[in-house]
Amino acid sequence: MEFDKLVHQPTRLRIFAHLYANGEASFTALTEELEITEGNLASHIERMEDADCVAVDKEFVDRKPRTTYRLTERGEELFEDHIDTLEALIDGLEADDS
Amino acid sequence: MEFDKLVHQPTRLRIFAHLYANGEASFTALTEELEITEGNLASHIERMEDADCVAVDKEFVDRKPRTTYRLTERGEELFEDHIDTLEALIDGLEADDS
Repeated sequence: MEFDKLVHQPTRLRIFAHLYANGEASFTALTEELEITEGNLASHIERMEDADCVAVDKEFVDRKPRTTYRLTERGEELFEDHIDTLEALIDGLEADDS
Repeated sequence: MEFDKLVHQPTRLRIFAHLYANGEASFTALTEELEITEGNLASHIERMEDADCVAVDKEFVDRKPRTTYRLTERGEELFEDHIDTLEALIDGLEADDS
């Protein structure tokens, strides 16, 4: 049982989960939903981008820049594998309980 | 949603899960089951002991020293809380999928 540290790190796990569940989210929405600072979010997003797990979309809305993030196919796959691993760990507990 | 870093760290999460499921385990059994080095196990067990999550039992069996570990009540509680948090994250994904 291996845990990918890119996905497993607590804040990134929550970013992955949020993007996976919601499809996409703006930078501002992520800081608010996850209650993390802009600097913290930026550094984790950068690592996720470097690993080709997150794609960025920058556009102007009402002349204001808006940055939107979504998981890439690779990001979705890594996250799904990770959830499978966590579920296997949890299922293992229940099996041994009985 | 908060992840306790003591429990969440990948190797410790597996140590917690193994001890939780099996009740107790020897030092040797843990290195073999989890496929980690003695040094790696010792350093994680030390952190878990410092946090009052693991209790140690040292005895002699056939004149050989044997060290056995088990989770303390606090360790079990922290682990159960952590599993609840992970399950909530996973359940959140399924709810948003539908």
